[in-house]
Amino acid sequence: MTLTRTAATFAPPVMEARRWLEGVTFTDDRPLINVSQAAPVDPPPLALRQAMADFAINQDAAHLYGPVLGNPDLRAKLAREIGDHYAAEIRPEQTAITSGCNQAFASVISAITGQGDEVILPTPWYFNHKMWLDMTGVRAVDLPTGSDLLPDPERARALITERTRAIALVTPNNPGGVEYPADLVRAFYDLAQEHGLRLLVDETYRDFDSRNGPPHALFQQPDWDRTLVHLYSFSKAYRLTGHRVGAIATGAQLLAEVEKFLDTVAICPGQIGQFAALWGMQNLSQWLAGERAEILDRRAAITQNMPRLTDKGWRLLGLGAYFAYLEHPFEMPSDELARRLVGDAGILLLPGTMFMPDHDPAGKRQVRIAFANLDRAGIEQLFDRLQALSF
Amino acid sequence: MTLTRTAATFAPPVMEARRWLEGVTFTDDRPLINVSQAAPVDPPPLALRQAMADFAINQDAAHLYGPVLGNPDLRAKLAREIGDHYAAEIRPEQTAITSGCNQAFASVISAITGQGDEVILPTPWYFNHKMWLDMTGVRAVDLPTGSDLLPDPERARALITERTRAIALVTPNNPGGVEYPADLVRAFYDLAQEHGLRLLVDETYRDFDSRNGPPHALFQQPDWDRTLVHLYSFSKAYRLTGHRVGAIATGAQLLAEVEKFLDTVAICPGQIGQFAALWGMQNLSQWLAGERAEILDRRAAITQNMPRLTDKGWRLLGLGAYFAYLEHPFEMPSDELARRLVGDAGILLLPGTMFMPDHDPAGKRQVRIAFANLDRAGIEQLFDRLQALSF
Repeated sequence: MTLTRTAATFAPPVMEARRWLEGVTFTDDRPLINVSQAAPVDPPPLALRQAMADFAINQDAAHLYGPVLGNPDLRAKLAREIGDHYAAEIRPEQTAITSGCNQAFASVISAITGQGDEVILPTPWYFNHKMWLDMTGVRAVDLPTGSDLLPDPERARALITERTRAIALVTPNNPGGVEYPADLVRAFYDLAQEHGLRLLVDETYRDFDSRNGPPHALFQQPDWDRTLVHLYSFSKAYRLTGHRVGAIATGAQLLAEVEKFLDTVAICPGQIGQFAALWGMQNLSQWLAGERAEILDRRAAITQNMPRLTDKGWRLLGLGAYFAYLEHPFEMPSDELARRLVGDAGILLLPGTMFMPDHDPAGKRQVRIAFANLDRAGIEQLFDRLQALSF
Repeated sequence: MTLTRTAATFAPPVMEARRWLEGVTFTDDRPLINVSQAAPVDPPPLALRQAMADFAINQDAAHLYGPVLGNPDLRAKLAREIGDHYAAEIRPEQTAITSGCNQAFASVISAITGQGDEVILPTPWYFNHKMWLDMTGVRAVDLPTGSDLLPDPERARALITERTRAIALVTPNNPGGVEYPADLVRAFYDLAQEHGLRLLVDETYRDFDSRNGPPHALFQQPDWDRTLVHLYSFSKAYRLTGHRVGAIATGAQLLAEVEKFLDTVAICPGQIGQFAALWGMQNLSQWLAGERAEILDRRAAITQNMPRLTDKGWRLLGLGAYFAYLEHPFEMPSDELARRLVGDAGILLLPGTMFMPDHDPAGKRQVRIAFANLDRAGIEQLFDRLQALSF
């Protein structure tokens, strides 16, 4: 009996973590601090919600099937937007809209790999990437990073075999938070190009990068679309998580393959979400700048509070986007720690073991804190509770 | 070099057909009659659109991530609804919501098969089923039907091997239109159970079945959820195609596997669509009954017009749901005929070759007409044009 596709992978970590809450009671004195999921907890701004209400009533197309690769006006706007952001020229046919960024990844992987192929992922990795590779019969080759969480292109080079089809980076990184330097991303691009591989760069958290200007120069390379596959999400920028709108930028030829997958698995991305993403790009750039400033201020609060934990033996390995990635000082594996933190400290976070292959012990010392939904007071409280821990 | 997953299948038929329209002009005298796609062309009724507008403005949850397997209140209502329709008892945990019914199929297949397994599909088949099987490395074993388009369980039995994992039926059938008799569905259920297989029954067009009462008794069987996987779509009933809301009913254990796939490929179904589907079930049963009556009247119009084509050598093989499935009398393969009909008759329909494996010549004689969007006058016109054909 062959293993079924889903039996080849693990249960969704976020769901598993949510189950740890069962039977635990939280009081008004000490409410749960949930830093497990990297998603907005507030709805889109009122103006966008009103626009969506108007679409629902007055735009028939907002309810009907649309093109598999997304609505043309949204693709055109996205192409201009990417062009502005990365100081490059992007054509609409080099873009596609997907039902969220996970689906962007899944569809691209299915378009570039077959059973038994390999894809290189720096660790800690984003677990849904690993899960899709498992399910689609592709070996995820882990590329351990050092204590700065940056992957080493030369170490990646040593992992390339004749089955390797791609290297997948996430920057700013989930779970690590680190923003990959432009030179590093470029070195991976050159490596991929040299070996005829695709370089996937998942930039879901792009809008909260602390750097100004283009975070890398890949879109400026000649024939960038033969090597680069850029992945993006509208979920975080405009708080559209529940509408599932992601995107791909790469060559039109590859997108014709991606189209087969998307047609079969989704038919088209949700229309209201597409209308909302377009409206967001047209109207919310100022609002988004404010959101970014707020996230960067929360990030600064983490930096300011960090010495309290450093004194207790914690280490900050990465900080950025929605995430702080830490090494804990306790004599227990991080998955056990994470479970205990629910009852003992009223904190729900994800352990490093969820982002790491079993054979790599580093994950046992690490935890991810998705801090984006905590304001400064919340961050103070989180650090109070972590500082008070004694196991 | 291994074949990539998407290279293992063909381009989406509906898109290909749409490309046939390029460069062809249609006049007001003779506008295009598009009977290629099985989807409503009108938006949901105003009351539902107004409800959705209200959700967009006032329901935060309509914008945020929800549970992977769908919103609990929608699952609970669906369970009651299935129970009422099939005169059975269904529990909410035996249901799941997906981003459309294609995704329901893909997720279930990934949960019950691995590379090299086999699934039996009666032909003509629904092409997205075939495409997913191709992409996921599962062999689609075709089960030819006779001129009544009904599959024979004994012929299916002969196709079962040790790699067979499931039989997938569609009733009312797409593309064939035929409503499978309850006894026939039951015979397939017994066959599947006997061999430890799953029986997938895609009932996307259930709401337009001409029969009253439960269309089959499978939900009444003890331990039905170990064998039966029922697939459903809210797209047709409430005209929610653009919102991607489908559903599964089967055992909770299988749904825990399905959850891995859905988490990785979709995270959750679109929220506004889920809110709309629930509202629809709560408020639109009378409206839906009217929709059904209208479709059944259009179906009657096909029957009434059919003698005009029978005289010209056409044969009606199947009629029901949104579809008439016909054998044409011309000395050319259906894919060539379909292309010529665009320019020569202003008709866009799909050829039988799109629903049939290459080795089966039957598809060359067949065409599918998705008539649901044509009123009686439109159907008259369609038949006028078909009757006038001479090749």
